[in-house]
Amino acid sequence: MINPLELRKFVAPEVISGKGSLELVGQYANMFGGAHIFLVTDRNIQKCDWFRKILLSFEQNGIRVSLFDDVSENPRDFQIMEGASEYRDNSCDIIVAVGGGSVIDAAKGIGIVATNHGHINSFEGVDQIENPIPPLICIPTTCGSSADVSQFSIINNTGEQRKIAIISKALVPDISLVDPVPLLTLNKEVLVSVSLDTLTHGIEAFVSTASSILTDRHAVGAIELIAQNLIPALSDVSNLELLTNLMYASLEAGLAFSNASLGLVHAMAHVLGGFKDFPHGVCNGLLLKSICEYNYDSCPDKFDRITSVLATARGVKAQPGLDSLNRELGAIIEKTGITGNLSQFHLTKSECRKLAGFSLQDVCNATNPKMPTLEDIVELYERTFYR
Amino acid sequence: MINPLELRKFVAPEVISGKGSLELVGQYANMFGGAHIFLVTDRNIQKCDWFRKILLSFEQNGIRVSLFDDVSENPRDFQIMEGASEYRDNSCDIIVAVGGGSVIDAAKGIGIVATNHGHINSFEGVDQIENPIPPLICIPTTCGSSADVSQFSIINNTGEQRKIAIISKALVPDISLVDPVPLLTLNKEVLVSVSLDTLTHGIEAFVSTASSILTDRHAVGAIELIAQNLIPALSDVSNLELLTNLMYASLEAGLAFSNASLGLVHAMAHVLGGFKDFPHGVCNGLLLKSICEYNYDSCPDKFDRITSVLATARGVKAQPGLDSLNRELGAIIEKTGITGNLSQFHLTKSECRKLAGFSLQDVCNATNPKMPTLEDIVELYERTFYR
Repeated sequence: MINPLELRKFVAPEVISGKGSLELVGQYANMFGGAHIFLVTDRNIQKCDWFRKILLSFEQNGIRVSLFDDVSENPRDFQIMEGASEYRDNSCDIIVAVGGGSVIDAAKGIGIVATNHGHINSFEGVDQIENPIPPLICIPTTCGSSADVSQFSIINNTGEQRKIAIISKALVPDISLVDPVPLLTLNKEVLVSVSLDTLTHGIEAFVSTASSILTDRHAVGAIELIAQNLIPALSDVSNLELLTNLMYASLEAGLAFSNASLGLVHAMAHVLGGFKDFPHGVCNGLLLKSICEYNYDSCPDKFDRITSVLATARGVKAQPGLDSLNRELGAIIEKTGITGNLSQFHLTKSECRKLAGFSLQDVCNATNPKMPTLEDIVELYERTFYR
Repeated sequence: MINPLELRKFVAPEVISGKGSLELVGQYANMFGGAHIFLVTDRNIQKCDWFRKILLSFEQNGIRVSLFDDVSENPRDFQIMEGASEYRDNSCDIIVAVGGGSVIDAAKGIGIVATNHGHINSFEGVDQIENPIPPLICIPTTCGSSADVSQFSIINNTGEQRKIAIISKALVPDISLVDPVPLLTLNKEVLVSVSLDTLTHGIEAFVSTASSILTDRHAVGAIELIAQNLIPALSDVSNLELLTNLMYASLEAGLAFSNASLGLVHAMAHVLGGFKDFPHGVCNGLLLKSICEYNYDSCPDKFDRITSVLATARGVKAQPGLDSLNRELGAIIEKTGITGNLSQFHLTKSECRKLAGFSLQDVCNATNPKMPTLEDIVELYERTFYR
């Protein structure tokens, strides 16, 4: 149970949500004093119809644009350094990120290096950013990472083949324009991956040792919206109302985990994603059940609440207890169609041990409801890989 | 039902909550570049033990302080003008408000005039503020107005004997330090008044035509926390955990109504408070039931949800419908001990008509779920006064 007397923080960007919000980007860029935008995006996004509305909005507001689209999934440290150098060379004064988590995380990384200099990998950890980053406007195009509301940026340290987490209030964007229309572009596979990321954010924030009354509202809200809308959306991927609800799930999950932080699922998924470049949401989805089982006895009331929300959404009543939790998580994860184990990673047992060592150092571990040992993590990786 | 596709906004200040948060004020004032604070408060607050910790925090951070404590309940326009003139005369660079809604609203008003010049009454309405106000840090000392998180400032226009509402994103404080300790200073009468204000904020934000998925979470959260904690707190006014939960109720209600706005209860209560200088929360509490009855058929699902939250908190099951809503609202309002009608105002019928005219113009009316006529409001005032 939360002790309401404990010190907690809550920071959120300004959010404009709903259909049409992305068309306001030029107006808001002006409001934040931007005359020359550094536009971070990726190549696929530029082919979408709605992307033209963003460019039109800049044009109508008399704003110059320098485009940077050299961003991959799981963005690399060298891409960030290149982006920061282009930002400075072009004398830009504001950053607009249009994309999923990779693009937005890259934009945050570019912002950090643009005003703080130094190498991006040197900012790993909590509160390592001294100078404010340039004004940052985000237009998320998936309903997963919640990077558009969070204090997090996850970058691939390519030298060490692992993802690093940079966490700071300085990374909360100035404004997020959360428009459901870009979600119409997602294929089913991506929708599954990003939505499992959101589900994991909601669950890990809710059981985090840094959760609060405010973050709990949004964590439970996110879990409920995913439980009610994900499976219907997978068989009706152009239903804008279902997609909008998934977008709100991501927004709420972001408000929750940005302030309550995450846990062991993310610590282990970050390492996996950095090592094998696998989609982050799928890593989370595959690890989620085993780690909830591992964490269950540290806060059974909260896990029972999660069970109840998941069960209610599919119209059944659930008893408290670990078996019910396993059944409900299994029910939603299996319906998304992702496979039940991680054998596709072809990891050796000695690699598992190496990854476990990195996971133990990940900042997300600090707020996991149970403090894992190296052996616990090795065992969890092995159980997920070889069962 | 909310249409999730509609455009919505959500703005919140940075919030630090929990025991000890007020002691961080000097550190945050420094962070916002403040060297000379304009400290807005009232005379009673300065007698409290915990107030010394605030002064100590300024001292430890090397910050000069100019004190302004000429603020009454329902703050007057001339007090604002006097404060703004002192702010400028002392060359202050940041405002810290320590108090209830009146003090914080006054601090916001002083901030408006300090950077925008002109008379405070000329800023009435929505988005009438051109220049940003100085950095503003709030330490709320009641659990009612939520002025420490909201975009609202309510000032008494003494010439016209009515309250004006000033609403702008520019009025969201930079940071709110929400510490439960000052609530230990409240007497039972004030606790009732401010908590009924919070209950009304939660209900009006929830049924507002501008509500969203995000504001609904906090609106329902606020109603639930009031329903669970108010009556127990009234018979145990030094129970810090109950008071902390009421403080979170106010915080959540503020996040909800600051973004979803309010309705007819506030429109009618503002006018009453301006005309007779009666405590705002009591005005709300006395008007709440009649106006919920008036609004019920415009969104019965939402009102039934309110009934269910109130009933669950007192351990009973409620059927949907207006009768249940009346019973549940009656149960909590009566237990607070405020009287069931407004006869203490001694209003004549012609005065009722005049007040109704002002209410009709109040900005809070715009988001009431049903659009009232002048005759509706006259009838509602009369029913509440003379029944």
